[in-house]
Amino acid sequence: MGNEKKEPYEMVDTQYYSEWYNQVIESSELTDKRYPVKGMNIWRPYGWKLMWNIDSETRSHMRRTGHHEVKFPLLIPEDEFQKEADHIKGFDDEVYWVTRAGRNELDIPLLLRPTSETAMYPVFDLWVRSHADLPLKIFQMVDVFRYETKQTRAFTRMREIHFFEAHTCHETSEDAEEQIREDLEIMEDLSRKLCLPNLELKRTEWDKFPGAEYTVGVDSLLPTGRLLQIAGIHQYKTNFAQAYDIRYEDVEGEHRFVHQTTYGMSARLIGAIIGIHGDEKGIVLPPAVAPIQVRIIPITYGEKESEILDYCDDLKERLGSAGFRVDIDDREDVRPGSKFYDSEMKGIPIRVDIGSQELEQKSITLVRRDHGDKKEYGHQEVVERVREECEAMEEDMYSKAEDFLQKNMVDAEDLSDIVEEKVYRIGWCGSRGCGENIEESTDRHILGTLYQGEEYQGKCLNCGDENADAAYLCKKE
Amino acid sequence: MGNEKKEPYEMVDTQYYSEWYNQVIESSELTDKRYPVKGMNIWRPYGWKLMWNIDSETRSHMRRTGHHEVKFPLLIPEDEFQKEADHIKGFDDEVYWVTRAGRNELDIPLLLRPTSETAMYPVFDLWVRSHADLPLKIFQMVDVFRYETKQTRAFTRMREIHFFEAHTCHETSEDAEEQIREDLEIMEDLSRKLCLPNLELKRTEWDKFPGAEYTVGVDSLLPTGRLLQIAGIHQYKTNFAQAYDIRYEDVEGEHRFVHQTTYGMSARLIGAIIGIHGDEKGIVLPPAVAPIQVRIIPITYGEKESEILDYCDDLKERLGSAGFRVDIDDREDVRPGSKFYDSEMKGIPIRVDIGSQELEQKSITLVRRDHGDKKEYGHQEVVERVREECEAMEEDMYSKAEDFLQKNMVDAEDLSDIVEEKVYRIGWCGSRGCGENIEESTDRHILGTLYQGEEYQGKCLNCGDENADAAYLCKKE
Repeated sequence: MGNEKKEPYEMVDTQYYSEWYNQVIESSELTDKRYPVKGMNIWRPYGWKLMWNIDSETRSHMRRTGHHEVKFPLLIPEDEFQKEADHIKGFDDEVYWVTRAGRNELDIPLLLRPTSETAMYPVFDLWVRSHADLPLKIFQMVDVFRYETKQTRAFTRMREIHFFEAHTCHETSEDAEEQIREDLEIMEDLSRKLCLPNLELKRTEWDKFPGAEYTVGVDSLLPTGRLLQIAGIHQYKTNFAQAYDIRYEDVEGEHRFVHQTTYGMSARLIGAIIGIHGDEKGIVLPPAVAPIQVRIIPITYGEKESEILDYCDDLKERLGSAGFRVDIDDREDVRPGSKFYDSEMKGIPIRVDIGSQELEQKSITLVRRDHGDKKEYGHQEVVERVREECEAMEEDMYSKAEDFLQKNMVDAEDLSDIVEEKVYRIGWCGSRGCGENIEESTDRHILGTLYQGEEYQGKCLNCGDENADAAYLCKKE
Repeated sequence: MGNEKKEPYEMVDTQYYSEWYNQVIESSELTDKRYPVKGMNIWRPYGWKLMWNIDSETRSHMRRTGHHEVKFPLLIPEDEFQKEADHIKGFDDEVYWVTRAGRNELDIPLLLRPTSETAMYPVFDLWVRSHADLPLKIFQMVDVFRYETKQTRAFTRMREIHFFEAHTCHETSEDAEEQIREDLEIMEDLSRKLCLPNLELKRTEWDKFPGAEYTVGVDSLLPTGRLLQIAGIHQYKTNFAQAYDIRYEDVEGEHRFVHQTTYGMSARLIGAIIGIHGDEKGIVLPPAVAPIQVRIIPITYGEKESEILDYCDDLKERLGSAGFRVDIDDREDVRPGSKFYDSEMKGIPIRVDIGSQELEQKSITLVRRDHGDKKEYGHQEVVERVREECEAMEEDMYSKAEDFLQKNMVDAEDLSDIVEEKVYRIGWCGSRGCGENIEESTDRHILGTLYQGEEYQGKCLNCGDENADAAYLCKKE
């Protein structure tokens, strides 16, 4: 179906993709998969810095919107976990159980959080007393644990998952809806910075988060033609508040259940970036979050070595002062070709090559990782040009990925049209019966309807009902 | 023995101390102990920011000294854990075991890391090939889990422990010794910033870290007269390298075991700060790590409200631009007295009071949390004065705690002298037999001999041997 070579923004064969993906995440030194527990990888320094930079972007949005960072314990007692019926059903098969400590069997088994509702909400009723305590907006960044039974994959399907989760409580359902709109605005900005165009889809009833009233899944299209969920935003209404008795006293002195939402993201963001933007040479990182934004490479071949190195130091100094994350690859026993290779493999957005010609002409040769074009500039311009190229690269990466998504979304008016690895827009009457029939006969999932809604004229692909909505059908990564 | 009131830098009754400690950590909103698992608390936003600031200080030292941040998985397979015999013996009673996942019993039980040697070292032999890969210097900040059987206490004796651990590999034993000196220099700087004077003690053979060749414990004196270990630095020599087969090829092509060290700290640093510096009014935070360094309090009593608030905003703006963490307590329905109380309880180093008098005279009233003295300054001086007072406060907090430590270290020349809650310097011949006799008969621990060594003339308190070293005997927190 797809290419046998990983070109960015083109479909690629699934089997080939897997091999390529596994190879580049190791070669780029993001992670080490040789840890002796399946689905649990080691974050190497380069990968951990990338995750850290992504988390920092998220943190700055959280701060701006009045969320406070907290950290709840990892272990949840079995009895607290079992209070919300749908929630248990959704996670029961996936939890890790601590049953023993030292030489003792525990009286009440403890589970590793698969998500933190059941850790947090027993305390929320102590924190929320009156309407003056609302909204309560908190978040944490922790690892969650899910006993994934499918084939695991670095970043996208793990058993130990680096996780961001925001939890909010509000007076009314409308306040909670407003929160969801705020979350989606944050997501929009993050999508730009991470170069991850996506669809915001209101999930089907049978695919929503366990315990939620509804779920908005944010999905990016991988070059395998599968949608990868990169974020989930959930409206809980009072479902959990009723299970955990979280009530506030309103202005009239009435005790009412709070309305809750959550917003979750994970290391999957990295998986999406790699999959969508990477190529045969390695990964390609968005400038906003790249651990190293600019790498300067001295090309000496033994000539004018100290002058060239001084020149590089000066450029590094100026870029560093301007706020760029910059380094010099000054390894002595490594040839320039290998250095280029290494810089490309690691997805460093901008490379600045400095040889005797640049030294002589007081110029720089700037190479962008995404398209590989070289440009020469005067050395005084370095800060300004690097800034411009970073901005342009972000723009280009986003819009190319957006084109790829648009190009691979097609309307299907008949079940028999659905054969390719694409996102199909189909008519669906909204009933579970029709939805499940469509999913079964196409071996795909209905990922939902656009959160913001859209005009649609077609009929339900299963029952022919003319009052159908547009739904998005695709394989799930 | 001690006071029935918590004065800073004075001994306090142990029972009273516990009550006071538990009360201030809740009232200052550092942590919430109502989480339904013993020994696992919730980090509230204020406490988490404090920990974050402490971690940032540590991180900047790690960066400066060429350590790289990584993150290893939480779960360790039983067989990897069991490779170093002393290490298992030391932790076996304390580990939490995951035995079940979903509906399956695990074939190989997984334990929650109590520390990460046995998670990391199986991979080190893949990372270290030749002398060119050395030194390997990494660190991580994660939670570790120890099934503590004694009474738990927030920050100082927990079952879920926020932990910093640096791990290094070197070519030679001397390189490893050099690393330990670097760690102790870092510790020295952190001690200043956190206002935690301490003793660096080489632990006894029977009290060293399980698997270590030797351990340096860094201990601060609490006002209960007990020493609290706030850091541990360990020389492993090749003990773990042999168990995990971590070898490098030296310049002659020989395969040799690496020499390893670790350096660990935890949330205990917060426990020590609270215990040593706190008073009846609440906690007192070192300016370098306080989440809020300056709090501005408008005192309006309904007069000139908007002018006073504008004046406060201007001060906040200037302090914020100068890099201070500053806020304004502009709650409308709260009286100034309550605001003072709240600022004191939270240990905010500097308070700036602004009423109509300050407005009129274009002045500020600055109040330091540690001694409570008030000073008036012109408003133009605000940045400079706040900086000076922060520096002076750090200096004063450190030196008062240092005086307290010195005053409560006494020489004992006979076992019968050892009755008070103090640190006793005693003569000890170094034998385990004498050491254990001394510990038993005094119901105290020998915490070791000074790492840097010292001249000492006395005799062993047990056997009378005249070649005794000075050892430090105290109760352990």
